[in-house]
Amino acid sequence: MISNEMFLEKARALEPTLNITEAVPPGFERTVLGEGGKTVFDFGTHYVGHIRMELAYEGSHPDAPLWLNIQFAERESELHEDPADYRGWISRGWIQNEQIHIDILPAALKLPRRYAFRYVKIEVLAASSKYSAVIERISCLAESSADDARLRPYRSGDSLLGKMDAVACRTLHECMQKVFEDGPKRDRRLWLGDLRLQALANYESYRCSSLVKRCLYLFAGCADDRGKIPAAVFTEPEIEADDVYMFDYSLLFVPALLDYFNETGDTEALRELWPVAWNQIILARDCFDSKGVVIDDGRPGWCFIDWNLALDKQASAQGVCLYCLKAAKRIAEILGENGKAAEAEKEYAEKKSAALEYLLDKESGFFISGPEKQRSLASQVWMILGGVTEGSEARDLLLRLSSPELLAPVTPYMMHHYVEAAVLCGEKEHALKLLRDYWGEMVNEGADTFWELYNPLDPDESPYGGTIVNSYCHAWSCAPAYFLRKYFN
Amino acid sequence: MISNEMFLEKARALEPTLNITEAVPPGFERTVLGEGGKTVFDFGTHYVGHIRMELAYEGSHPDAPLWLNIQFAERESELHEDPADYRGWISRGWIQNEQIHIDILPAALKLPRRYAFRYVKIEVLAASSKYSAVIERISCLAESSADDARLRPYRSGDSLLGKMDAVACRTLHECMQKVFEDGPKRDRRLWLGDLRLQALANYESYRCSSLVKRCLYLFAGCADDRGKIPAAVFTEPEIEADDVYMFDYSLLFVPALLDYFNETGDTEALRELWPVAWNQIILARDCFDSKGVVIDDGRPGWCFIDWNLALDKQASAQGVCLYCLKAAKRIAEILGENGKAAEAEKEYAEKKSAALEYLLDKESGFFISGPEKQRSLASQVWMILGGVTEGSEARDLLLRLSSPELLAPVTPYMMHHYVEAAVLCGEKEHALKLLRDYWGEMVNEGADTFWELYNPLDPDESPYGGTIVNSYCHAWSCAPAYFLRKYFN
Repeated sequence: MISNEMFLEKARALEPTLNITEAVPPGFERTVLGEGGKTVFDFGTHYVGHIRMELAYEGSHPDAPLWLNIQFAERESELHEDPADYRGWISRGWIQNEQIHIDILPAALKLPRRYAFRYVKIEVLAASSKYSAVIERISCLAESSADDARLRPYRSGDSLLGKMDAVACRTLHECMQKVFEDGPKRDRRLWLGDLRLQALANYESYRCSSLVKRCLYLFAGCADDRGKIPAAVFTEPEIEADDVYMFDYSLLFVPALLDYFNETGDTEALRELWPVAWNQIILARDCFDSKGVVIDDGRPGWCFIDWNLALDKQASAQGVCLYCLKAAKRIAEILGENGKAAEAEKEYAEKKSAALEYLLDKESGFFISGPEKQRSLASQVWMILGGVTEGSEARDLLLRLSSPELLAPVTPYMMHHYVEAAVLCGEKEHALKLLRDYWGEMVNEGADTFWELYNPLDPDESPYGGTIVNSYCHAWSCAPAYFLRKYFN
Repeated sequence: MISNEMFLEKARALEPTLNITEAVPPGFERTVLGEGGKTVFDFGTHYVGHIRMELAYEGSHPDAPLWLNIQFAERESELHEDPADYRGWISRGWIQNEQIHIDILPAALKLPRRYAFRYVKIEVLAASSKYSAVIERISCLAESSADDARLRPYRSGDSLLGKMDAVACRTLHECMQKVFEDGPKRDRRLWLGDLRLQALANYESYRCSSLVKRCLYLFAGCADDRGKIPAAVFTEPEIEADDVYMFDYSLLFVPALLDYFNETGDTEALRELWPVAWNQIILARDCFDSKGVVIDDGRPGWCFIDWNLALDKQASAQGVCLYCLKAAKRIAEILGENGKAAEAEKEYAEKKSAALEYLLDKESGFFISGPEKQRSLASQVWMILGGVTEGSEARDLLLRLSSPELLAPVTPYMMHHYVEAAVLCGEKEHALKLLRDYWGEMVNEGADTFWELYNPLDPDESPYGGTIVNSYCHAWSCAPAYFLRKYFN
């Protein structure tokens, strides 16, 4: 058995080098700003990196420090929000807004923090009556571990699809740092469910499987004493497990590992990581009742599935577990572990039966979740992905998912699984329509990168209490790069 | 004739090394602060320097950046002012308040800017629901070019006098950086009138005449094409004249040079700088009318004298010029330049006569200033220092200066000259009473260093529109170290 430390050693050895390129706002012009003056620089697309500025002055030698407010925004609309008005529950520390004093001008500044942005708004909070500030130059030292030279070309005769792919690849590019970050603005962590989707898009585009491998080993190295994998991992200042554990995210290690093997044929990694993956299957058993149905333990965030706060997650969780059991069985078969393959198959059958018996409303044909028997799109999608319903039945269910009686999802993360279900059912045109209607609409709304959250019916929805902390470059949203390249090329 | 560049070369060669010592708040204890939490660290006395902090966390691994507000205050009362409420005319850029984000904890920080403070207030603007910030250590890397080992001891049987001297020496210590700064909080420039008083206190205490020499050469090197010395000099990023010229400040180069020679006997410097000094006398002639009376050219700040905005400066300026003519004559005599000595004497006599004829109200015996014939303490003091009135007449005038009909001064700078006038008149007890009543009261109000401004009748007076930008460590206020040591030891 390999220890956590040995996993982490392998992960550290795979740390990528960041590629640094310097970007300047197209059409930049030297800008003079007196006290109270403000300006917005548009870098033309989304960047992640450090800001450099060359500042000077006009008028007399500055007789007081220059005091600037610098606000970074991924979308232009964020600039119209006052950070002071934000009252949400997620930390306001995420708002990309700085106040800095510059004692001596001219000055060549490099701001110490990394930002994710397209727009930079600079306001002179104080200069003096004797001088104005001059911005001689501003640039971004943009960072990513994605290698543009390795990006597979993608061509589509349909310009919207081409744009959707380009935006998805840009999203992935921006999130590929020293790990696959969920979002470079917020919260910059490596999350397991997010990783799985990023890895899929990455295999079709930047093909950096070593970064996926690194991330899998990071999770394996952060398992707790019982072997449970956390939902997320911190890498700074030291590698450390987040203390968040989610039913679905832990289990999704299994298909993420299988995907990695399918892409790379890396049997050594599959063999090393398989015990960790299998452990997730074993540990998940504690969350089922004697009938084989998932127990919602009432802990907020016990299972993720989607950011729709009204969502009951029981049925989705059942589907996730079944989906992962299928992957576990497949890995066991590849490795010739016939006993475990049989064990997975048996468990799968039991839990599928339980789902059909206790989580299906036979009259409507919809799966139900929780004590209120909630009907949601998420529950149906995960039951399809889990194989609880298959073939023409599954296809019929899929085509009824736009029914208004189903609770809708709000995240591209859940939408990705919806598209995956459509593909699984052989409904490629339906999948393409979903991609167009959801990601295509984000493109039509001007997205440079795909957003953490998008509800076409309420584009300003935020589960955090304010859009100013939303992440507008979020790699769980890079689905078009995966599906278009894999299935529509 | 020596060029400006040659003066500046000499000045650069005299740049002092800063002594760095690390100070921690007495009785410091590790401090845990959740979101919204705040604390004040009291360093026990005034420091100038850079802040170091060791930050950690309690709770979960931080899942959001820590966002701190850090406010620095020379006086505790400043902490009760909200910087956002400041509406004065001096740049709010001077308010010592920072907002910083810390992405990774634990962190060892060194803030990039220099502060002048005793108190540091730290408030957690954002952490998250999952962690609290911990301040493990805070210290100040205190900076000064004053050499404590050279400080002449001063003993007094009178504890208030002892305290006044100690506070004055601390004030000087804090302002002795790479030049004699006016105040280390604001505005940190080398000003000529301020330099003269700092140099006098320094000769009696830290005895660092090389720093005075450096500053004299800086001013000489910053003279304009006509030879006029600016009121102030910037030294960063390059040495540069401020574009502020004040009648009195330019002229005061002459007595400052004479004081330096009297202290050091440095004939070479006296000889090199004398042409620059004499030039100020020549250039000042343009500011007199045909009767030999100073013309107020109407330009705000044409002459400084004091920060009392109601003060008419004509008579004071006349007195300053006479005071400087006496010094010029003395330097000419030392250097054996008999022609210039005679020229200075003749000019002195003419301008003294003009003062007696046009600026004296014979009935009251008070000197008057401007079209409104304003009577101010400043006018009387400078006429005494300029020798317009002498002997018993001068002494009689001096003893009438507390008359409520005279406009009062507000700065320790003007008060220094008042004390000097008392000493000149042989009224040592009166001088001591002035020191006690003015600087002693600041000590009684808890001053660690003497303030830029002090009006005993209105301690919150500020010429800037808000006390939060006042400098509470201002070296034009270190008079007690000069007078007590020189005349009351």
